[in-house]
Amino acid sequence: MTPDELKRQVCRANLALVRSGLVAGTFGNVSGIDRSRGLVAIKPSGVDYERLTPAGIVLVSLDDGAVVGSRRGAGLRPSSDLPTHLELYRAFPSIGGAAHTHSLHATAWAQACRAIPALGTTHADHFHGPVPCTRPLRAAEIRGDYERNTGRVIVEVFARTGPDDVPAVLVAGHGPFTWGPTPAAAVQTSVMLEHVATLAALTLGIQPICRPIPRPLLDRHFRRKHGPDAYYGQRPPPGAERR
Amino acid sequence: MTPDELKRQVCRANLALVRSGLVAGTFGNVSGIDRSRGLVAIKPSGVDYERLTPAGIVLVSLDDGAVVGSRRGAGLRPSSDLPTHLELYRAFPSIGGAAHTHSLHATAWAQACRAIPALGTTHADHFHGPVPCTRPLRAAEIRGDYERNTGRVIVEVFARTGPDDVPAVLVAGHGPFTWGPTPAAAVQTSVMLEHVATLAALTLGIQPICRPIPRPLLDRHFRRKHGPDAYYGQRPPPGAERR
Amino acid sequence: MTPDELKRQVCRANLALVRSGLVAGTFGNVSGIDRSRGLVAIKPSGVDYERLTPAGIVLVSLDDGAVVGSRRGAGLRPSSDLPTHLELYRAFPSIGGAAHTHSLHATAWAQACRAIPALGTTHADHFHGPVPCTRPLRAAEIRGDYERNTGRVIVEVFARTGPDDVPAVLVAGHGPFTWGPTPAAAVQTSVMLEHVATLAALTLGIQPICRPIPRPLLDRHFRRKHGPDAYYGQRPPPGAERR
Amino acid sequence: MTPDELKRQVCRANLALVRSGLVAGTFGNVSGIDRSRGLVAIKPSGVDYERLTPAGIVLVSLDDGAVVGSRRGAGLRPSSDLPTHLELYRAFPSIGGAAHTHSLHATAWAQACRAIPALGTTHADHFHGPVPCTRPLRAAEIRGDYERNTGRVIVEVFARTGPDDVPAVLVAGHGPFTWGPTPAAAVQTSVMLEHVATLAALTLGIQPICRPIPRPLLDRHFRRKHGPDAYYGQRPPPGAERR
Repeated sequence: MTPDELKRQVCRANLALVRSGLVAGTFGNVSGIDRSRGLVAIKPSGVDYERLTPAGIVLVSLDDGAVVGSRRGAGLRPSSDLPTHLELYRAFPSIGGAAHTHSLHATAWAQACRAIPALGTTHADHFHGPVPCTRPLRAAEIRGDYERNTGRVIVEVFARTGPDDVPAVLVAGHGPFTWGPTPAAAVQTSVMLEHVATLAALTLGIQPICRPIPRPLLDRHFRRKHGPDAYYGQRPPPGAERR
Repeated sequence: MTPDELKRQVCRANLALVRSGLVAGTFGNVSGIDRSRGLVAIKPSGVDYERLTPAGIVLVSLDDGAVVGSRRGAGLRPSSDLPTHLELYRAFPSIGGAAHTHSLHATAWAQACRAIPALGTTHADHFHGPVPCTRPLRAAEIRGDYERNTGRVIVEVFARTGPDDVPAVLVAGHGPFTWGPTPAAAVQTSVMLEHVATLAALTLGIQPICRPIPRPLLDRHFRRKHGPDAYYGQRPPPGAERR
Repeated sequence: MTPDELKRQVCRANLALVRSGLVAGTFGNVSGIDRSRGLVAIKPSGVDYERLTPAGIVLVSLDDGAVVGSRRGAGLRPSSDLPTHLELYRAFPSIGGAAHTHSLHATAWAQACRAIPALGTTHADHFHGPVPCTRPLRAAEIRGDYERNTGRVIVEVFARTGPDDVPAVLVAGHGPFTWGPTPAAAVQTSVMLEHVATLAALTLGIQPICRPIPRPLLDRHFRRKHGPDAYYGQRPPPGAERR
Repeated sequence: MTPDELKRQVCRANLALVRSGLVAGTFGNVSGIDRSRGLVAIKPSGVDYERLTPAGIVLVSLDDGAVVGSRRGAGLRPSSDLPTHLELYRAFPSIGGAAHTHSLHATAWAQACRAIPALGTTHADHFHGPVPCTRPLRAAEIRGDYERNTGRVIVEVFARTGPDDVPAVLVAGHGPFTWGPTPAAAVQTSVMLEHVATLAALTLGIQPICRPIPRPLLDRHFRRKHGPDAYYGQRPPPGAERR
């Protein structure tokens, strides 16, 4: 993958995020990584989505976040959330893209500082357990390298489980981050996270005390779509038996 | 009805489901049956609605769910929810189509494991009583023939009443299924179920303890539109007096 | 006004109701009256809005509701809610149009059997007090001349105040009716009723115990727009001083 | 800036307000000021947005609110809320535009007579603290110079802090006003206020007792975007170091 192709992918994913209705104003950003070159591509800071082109996507080094020169890059600054994305790429070697939105319902759960419980099979189709919420950052973490520390509290949450079973998190008092094998997959997970967050909020409105679905149902639905025994869709993974 | 006509009907109904706004991503599916031939047509698994054509609709046998060969069918796999649809067709001889969505409010009631009470005449215009919720599946039912067992717990609910007075159900922790004389009617009922589920949730938000409408009002509205005494619309059933 | 002009007005108002997003399916209807001829025009029963033309609007006699012959009327049956509209026209001599919807929030208040309190100036701009809810119909009233009795319980509510200060009502367990000097005004009031019903439900969600605005504020806002002292808009009523 | 340019700016901002979906009917208005000439431009009262052109925008004197002659102005009357806008311009010398809407969630908070707490970083990105709610107007203030007194209770709230840290207010029982350096900025703040009001209402729905974010997080996010240390976007203020 050339750097230009990476920038095109990331541009397309940012525009898909807008079309999904998950962003208000210039909020939200999507990044992607080319691990063979150690390059991360991300949306520029505070630029209107209407004016976004692949040439405006900013390339930075995974190592230190420094902008990598590009004659067409026009010297734009990367999203101010870049250090958060970099922490995710460093800690989660399996991911190829990350997305951040202020989508309404996922952000409301983040503001409530509550994990989104797995209340139904729609949730289980995408997330193999509750979508966790980070701890609040400490004052020193906020006053210091804030965006990088945001990445660190996310990574803390997944220390034991890794990032693949539940490819999403709520940052307390802030909003959601999602990730996946590609920038497009990260955006798709943002869309499904908002759907699931909406469903969970509506469910609480109907039944304030509500239990998660039982473990066997959670496992069954997640494994219908993920892993060696998946049987949803048209392309079963190699070795999986058709049903 | 030729098998190709059945596939066209089912394709149209699936596309109507998307236009109604009730599905997110590739969720949701509609099927139809030709009882004279013992054939069921259903959406293929995990296929984007944008690419759906009548040729992509999968034909299976009502008897055993086996895919029925079609030169144009391109070997697509049926929706993973097919065994649920088959159970409905086997148990409910009066129905010609079935639909499944993850529409927001109906799914929220399913996640809350609560029947939707008949709180108003909009409900009574379509459903002659509360829209019931199934019992949760047992662990063995989930680990076994899961989609077929989903159909079985639905059928249990209607053992006494039959499927015609309330052509819809909520599967606990999952979401709604609807049915009707045709695939298009099943979709229309999904639309009305979501409307009624939304109304009921809003009503609880205003008045948490709320009683169903009285039986005479339920009967009057349902019978305005259904059965021999219907007087709504332009085509009264034969024998019904015009009012 | 010729009968054809009345039908055009009523057709336009029905189509405006659809464009406003207040109706689902074939629900909802608007009527208008020509008092000099004793003629009422109303939407036909159960007809798709997409196929609605002035020729399809049904003319009936205010006296007895009998359809008035029209070569172009094609013998369509009037809305099943006609008898409710007729009761309103008979009891409220000042009104020229009436509308009925199943709009989400107004219907939710009707299902909750609660009047919509005047919680803010948006309410007071249109309704000079709470929007009342009727008593539930008795079983005998439901089993008898149901639609006419629906009109009667509405009229009961306004016996003391008349229909002009609050041109809207919620029928308990059913939904809203609105009225005004013309069919278009009745539709516009349906739109504003839904807006006010939504605001009131959201307000209760934020503050479950919430008091109505004080009387002087209610009076001030209603009279900014209505009556001899109105000073909103470009055409002050004769005799009103410009401010 | 010529008076015609001011009218064009204010017309564009009023149309942007409509496109944002924040107004219902003819509600809502935006104004702008040319302080060098002492002229305020505002939407005419009760005019459909579809017919709004720069020529229809009304110019008035900041001193006394008198309409300033314009051959093309066609003698339209200014918005009935003009006296509120004038009070804001007189008390807040730093602002160049003001907007008023009846947007759903911000109005619901105003009807609930509750300030919108700073529950997350989306809030802190725009408002450096809770968005306050005015005290209710007294009966004499309502019966007297009502619109001017509305401006006065707003100004009371900001007596200590000034209008720049939180460029928005809720008028109790009424709705929101916002302001900024230009009419366009005031509209943009109305959009963000509605977003933040929606988030806060959804958060309360999930977690009824919810604390504001800590002060360091509020400061950090507000200062990422405002003031000498801002580092969001592509154009850092003069003297600010790029990060």
